[in-house]
Amino acid sequence: LKPTECRPALSKIWLWLKGLLGGLIVVVRRFLETAWSIAVAEPRKVVHGLKLGLAISLVSLLYYIGPLFKGFGGNASLWAVMTVVVIYESNVGATLCKCINRTAATFLAGGLGLGIHWVADHAGEKAEPVILGISVFLFASAATFSRFMPMVKARFDYGAMIFVLTFSLISVSGYREEMLLKFAGSRLSSIATGVSICILIIVLICPIWAGSELHRLIHQNMEKLADSLDACVAEYFKEDGKTTDSKEDQDYNKKMQGYKCVLNSKAAEESLANSARWEPSHGMFNFGHPWKQYLKIGASMRNCACCIETLTSCLSSEIQAPTCIRNHVRDVSIRLCSHSTSVLKELATTIKTMTKSSTIDILVAEMNFAVQELQNALNSLPSQFIPPELMTVEGSADAKGECATESGMPPLLEVLPLVTAVSLLIEIAVRIGGVVDAVEDLASL
Amino acid sequence: LKPTECRPALSKIWLWLKGLLGGLIVVVRRFLETAWSIAVAEPRKVVHGLKLGLAISLVSLLYYIGPLFKGFGGNASLWAVMTVVVIYESNVGATLCKCINRTAATFLAGGLGLGIHWVADHAGEKAEPVILGISVFLFASAATFSRFMPMVKARFDYGAMIFVLTFSLISVSGYREEMLLKFAGSRLSSIATGVSICILIIVLICPIWAGSELHRLIHQNMEKLADSLDACVAEYFKEDGKTTDSKEDQDYNKKMQGYKCVLNSKAAEESLANSARWEPSHGMFNFGHPWKQYLKIGASMRNCACCIETLTSCLSSEIQAPTCIRNHVRDVSIRLCSHSTSVLKELATTIKTMTKSSTIDILVAEMNFAVQELQNALNSLPSQFIPPELMTVEGSADAKGECATESGMPPLLEVLPLVTAVSLLIEIAVRIGGVVDAVEDLASL
Repeated sequence: LKPTECRPALSKIWLWLKGLLGGLIVVVRRFLETAWSIAVAEPRKVVHGLKLGLAISLVSLLYYIGPLFKGFGGNASLWAVMTVVVIYESNVGATLCKCINRTAATFLAGGLGLGIHWVADHAGEKAEPVILGISVFLFASAATFSRFMPMVKARFDYGAMIFVLTFSLISVSGYREEMLLKFAGSRLSSIATGVSICILIIVLICPIWAGSELHRLIHQNMEKLADSLDACVAEYFKEDGKTTDSKEDQDYNKKMQGYKCVLNSKAAEESLANSARWEPSHGMFNFGHPWKQYLKIGASMRNCACCIETLTSCLSSEIQAPTCIRNHVRDVSIRLCSHSTSVLKELATTIKTMTKSSTIDILVAEMNFAVQELQNALNSLPSQFIPPELMTVEGSADAKGECATESGMPPLLEVLPLVTAVSLLIEIAVRIGGVVDAVEDLASL
Repeated sequence: LKPTECRPALSKIWLWLKGLLGGLIVVVRRFLETAWSIAVAEPRKVVHGLKLGLAISLVSLLYYIGPLFKGFGGNASLWAVMTVVVIYESNVGATLCKCINRTAATFLAGGLGLGIHWVADHAGEKAEPVILGISVFLFASAATFSRFMPMVKARFDYGAMIFVLTFSLISVSGYREEMLLKFAGSRLSSIATGVSICILIIVLICPIWAGSELHRLIHQNMEKLADSLDACVAEYFKEDGKTTDSKEDQDYNKKMQGYKCVLNSKAAEESLANSARWEPSHGMFNFGHPWKQYLKIGASMRNCACCIETLTSCLSSEIQAPTCIRNHVRDVSIRLCSHSTSVLKELATTIKTMTKSSTIDILVAEMNFAVQELQNALNSLPSQFIPPELMTVEGSADAKGECATESGMPPLLEVLPLVTAVSLLIEIAVRIGGVVDAVEDLASL
């Protein structure tokens, strides 16, 4: 190849490399930007990372310089560090759950493994591998299958895995019992060191309690639900001439989408409730706090959110009811909505402060009264469907006449989205009643 | 104590023991019953458990009798067994994801750890522990924090943990590089043995593919949605005199609750889609199959399910529309519902067989026509609100007159649940249109 022929190939490679490098820089920059925005939004998560770093450093320091532990050597520090990394979870409850699961499963599997070892040992040299093999096969299969059972899955999933692991290791290792006991002793002491340092750091330095997280999730979701209902109804009944700037519009849209958070938080609620039940007393929560009731409140909120989701499709409906009919129910609807949201907000405050509300009964009564008013407003609506020439009722006949002639379409179809929206508003009020009941149940526990 | 005084205390203890034993037996029996029912319902789960038993037995057998591996001794078999237990997941995709994560993270952390070891080694004896400590602290914190980022959480969560683990182990171990390399060599070969046996067994014997599971979940959910819609509408418009036996009723209720499965399957869908993207070609699916589109179909189905959920509250409404008005929309509503469900069922078949449907366009057109018919039926409804003495329209005046006088309540409030239900049926048809679009997008990919 002549140098001149070489050049295009080289420049191609150079371009390709430049493209690759550019792409890589973009990916890394986007990654760092995301990380930064998360860190700014929730500094606790940064602290959480630093805590793990601290725990590992402490454990390794202990084994590096501690005169007490010199004897154990590299292998013990290995197990201590491994324990810290493996059991460290995003909240205290999950970490404790893993610790307890790991400990219980290790002892159970250890005892069982030693027993089977003893049996196999006394059964003769030929039978030994057969007995060990069959027992590993059976116990591992059974424990793995048990992980599919909902109760085991929710609470002892990790324990089942550790059971299989420990049992297999003991059976497979081929050590005699005396050696096994010595081996287990050094392993247990290093694991205990790891567990205790990990728990101390996770509980003492800015602890993230699963219970508090669940509590916060529930009352934040309730506020989001209230905001979302408010925004939807305001959007539906907003006057056409009104314009908003784009910044305000964005905020508004974000508020309106709040119900989606509620609809999607089932999995998070369940996992937090599962973790929370392992936690000791902390803050305002005792051990054995009725976390299950929080799940019920969450379910009742999702019921409401479903209704709001259906309501949003009325917003985008192309058919708009005539202005006079809209105005007829507008004020009453907005009043019902504001009463509904104030019930939700009062409930959120009740949960947040964990106090009994003195005004909730009045607020609920007001909401129910607003439902009545809205129903009355609907009842007085049908007279407007009647063509004006048939009207026999006295009163604001002029306005109604104008209203009826304005419409080119057949009347009921034209008011269908409005009637549906109003009916959904009433249904939402009924479901908010369900949320009130769930919260009151929690308060009475 | 005299023997006679002793007796009541003894019998108390005996009673307590008996109670404890009885309770234990009940718990164990219930546990076994649940296990049995799961095993009968899904024998694949039993096979899944047996496969893990087989993998562990094979690995330990290999180290127990294989002449090739005799040199490694107990420690190597320990790592191989541990690898099998830890990476074994409930489907192929999740297992592969763990394998790839584990391998990549181990190499990355190993390389980085060796590099830092080299730097620390050349920095002098005093600086060494400081450099090692700081690097462990920083990298462990950063990797743990990165697990909070959604992208890392979804795909590389396990990898980040293994990165922290390996990096800390190498930094803490205190070995020199030559020893580390030898140590790493034996470890890697045993891990590779574990991984390959595990993958072979999980792929070759009754594999559970995450992709197929997701596919099955989606078309089964679609059928459930159709059944649920069908059952709800039939329940709403059922004739009062009709009685059903309790067995039939139970089946019916179960069908009606189908929409709840759809509402709650978001988490399962996402985790399966995350696993499926790691899977190679299998069955009808290639590598790079558009699994994301399945999530979109799932979301559009949840939209429908939300509407059905709202519809169920119309079922339990105390206010019932007068029979004549009900009959007026009954047939058309049932027709719309049957067209909607046949669209859903056709979509389910399309997905199931992965073929383009020739009839879907016709079915959608029929559904839209039924929507039109229902809207027309609603349009002809308002004349029935007019008190009979004002009626000027000829025709079935008798029936309408009877209908209007029958009602004690003001008319609109009385038909409100009916109008809402009909409006929701129309909305459901619109949302089914969204599902059709999502499925067509999948077919075109």
